[in-house]
Amino acid sequence: MPFVTQRRVEFRDTDAAGIVHFSAFFPMMETAEHELLRSIGVDVMPRHVPEGMPITWPRVSAHCDYRAAARFEDLLTIEVRVAKIGSSSVRYEFVFTRDGVAIADGALTAVCCRLAPGGGLEKIAIPEETRHRFEAVG
Amino acid sequence: MPFVTQRRVEFRDTDAAGIVHFSAFFPMMETAEHELLRSIGVDVMPRHVPEGMPITWPRVSAHCDYRAAARFEDLLTIEVRVAKIGSSSVRYEFVFTRDGVAIADGALTAVCCRLAPGGGLEKIAIPEETRHRFEAVG
Amino acid sequence: MPFVTQRRVEFRDTDAAGIVHFSAFFPMMETAEHELLRSIGVDVMPRHVPEGMPITWPRVSAHCDYRAAARFEDLLTIEVRVAKIGSSSVRYEFVFTRDGVAIADGALTAVCCRLAPGGGLEKIAIPEETRHRFEAVG
Amino acid sequence: MPFVTQRRVEFRDTDAAGIVHFSAFFPMMETAEHELLRSIGVDVMPRHVPEGMPITWPRVSAHCDYRAAARFEDLLTIEVRVAKIGSSSVRYEFVFTRDGVAIADGALTAVCCRLAPGGGLEKIAIPEETRHRFEAVG
Repeated sequence: MPFVTQRRVEFRDTDAAGIVHFSAFFPMMETAEHELLRSIGVDVMPRHVPEGMPITWPRVSAHCDYRAAARFEDLLTIEVRVAKIGSSSVRYEFVFTRDGVAIADGALTAVCCRLAPGGGLEKIAIPEETRHRFEAVG
Repeated sequence: MPFVTQRRVEFRDTDAAGIVHFSAFFPMMETAEHELLRSIGVDVMPRHVPEGMPITWPRVSAHCDYRAAARFEDLLTIEVRVAKIGSSSVRYEFVFTRDGVAIADGALTAVCCRLAPGGGLEKIAIPEETRHRFEAVG
Repeated sequence: MPFVTQRRVEFRDTDAAGIVHFSAFFPMMETAEHELLRSIGVDVMPRHVPEGMPITWPRVSAHCDYRAAARFEDLLTIEVRVAKIGSSSVRYEFVFTRDGVAIADGALTAVCCRLAPGGGLEKIAIPEETRHRFEAVG
Repeated sequence: MPFVTQRRVEFRDTDAAGIVHFSAFFPMMETAEHELLRSIGVDVMPRHVPEGMPITWPRVSAHCDYRAAARFEDLLTIEVRVAKIGSSSVRYEFVFTRDGVAIADGALTAVCCRLAPGGGLEKIAIPEETRHRFEAVG
């Protein structure tokens, strides 16, 4: 069963064509992902990991197909699925609808990294506990 | 030969992971697309078309693969190609680099629509003159 | 009594200093304003007005004072007051707190306009019914 | 003499009222501020300061008055002045015009902080060298 959330289109997400700007679907996906993570007890930006360094989930890929225009104040339903769990990466898939009408569907692939000293990002295996939590919903 | 432009990463495009937010690449693609359109004399939002209604280019698909993090003040080079011209649609491909290092590459597919009375969008064939201009750079 | 709403800080609203970007408070104010308007039955973008043209509320002034940094995932409480009602304008005041700690306070002044043919904006008196609704909460 | 820069309105900065979203002027101010800082040799986010910690300039206040609507593709001229230099703070003032027509004017007040371990921000006196550079243009 997918995780489901809703959000109302904000004015800042519209553009001069009168519709939701195509780029605005990506932060909406991310926020839905973060709600999913909180719902399964995975810290989005955990302060501590076994290795003693914060981990973060930079994206390696983002995609969206647009089916119909969304407009200001539309109440969008967003379904999120954990579609694939790799050794270091997770692929989320998203379906946006409005009153049952397909609006958009997209995907994000994120890779588990720790924030190395100096600000660099270093890919690591997804911690076991986190993996189990993903598998429970994937 | 692709169209090439540059832009410096603005602070608003960064996030608390210290890097450019993944969603920020999409407006960058769009702005590069618009620069390309202006360079070939295609109005991004023309006031008049043969049928007497403004046309607009909503997106049907957007994609980005991320190769390396970009950071505040980085000067990014963006190459844009008109990769495919359909009867109603255009696919643009983008390559982002910083000092020759691959940062991201992406694509946008836009479909030619006229803005119908009431705010609806109606797909139309790309006007001939516009098509010729795309073909000259595609 | 002010109108009160809450929102959780989204990742896109943070910046590379690790805090909420100062500009992100303005869309948050606007969204809180729109929630207030919906709560009192005022259309944010009404389709029809007595004069037969859509009205809109462009801003003539926006202000924010920042008291403490907000961070990703913070749950912010936003109080909105209708602080002043002029013949054509409304001033909203906002107070952002997190667990009772002052984060920011701001103000927006919006002016009632109708969207004239051609896209121009023309200032009009606030419709009586709308004024009454504001006065009930101001 | 103020520092002067220009920027063309991007589509993402417009909204469904067909004009530049009021919040978009704030990132434009910030980017103009950063261009000014680079022009006078002040690092926006210096890696090293005498005390050995990075400094940053969070805002304590932001303001904008809107004079006329700006639209997609408008070429805006932005004048920036260093209007006031305090012991720890700097006030910038901005004037936006389009072909000589007043569009908006605003102000940002930023305070010099060092990024303390743990992510906290601590107010410090503006380093002498930085102060001299501001005074040369203020």
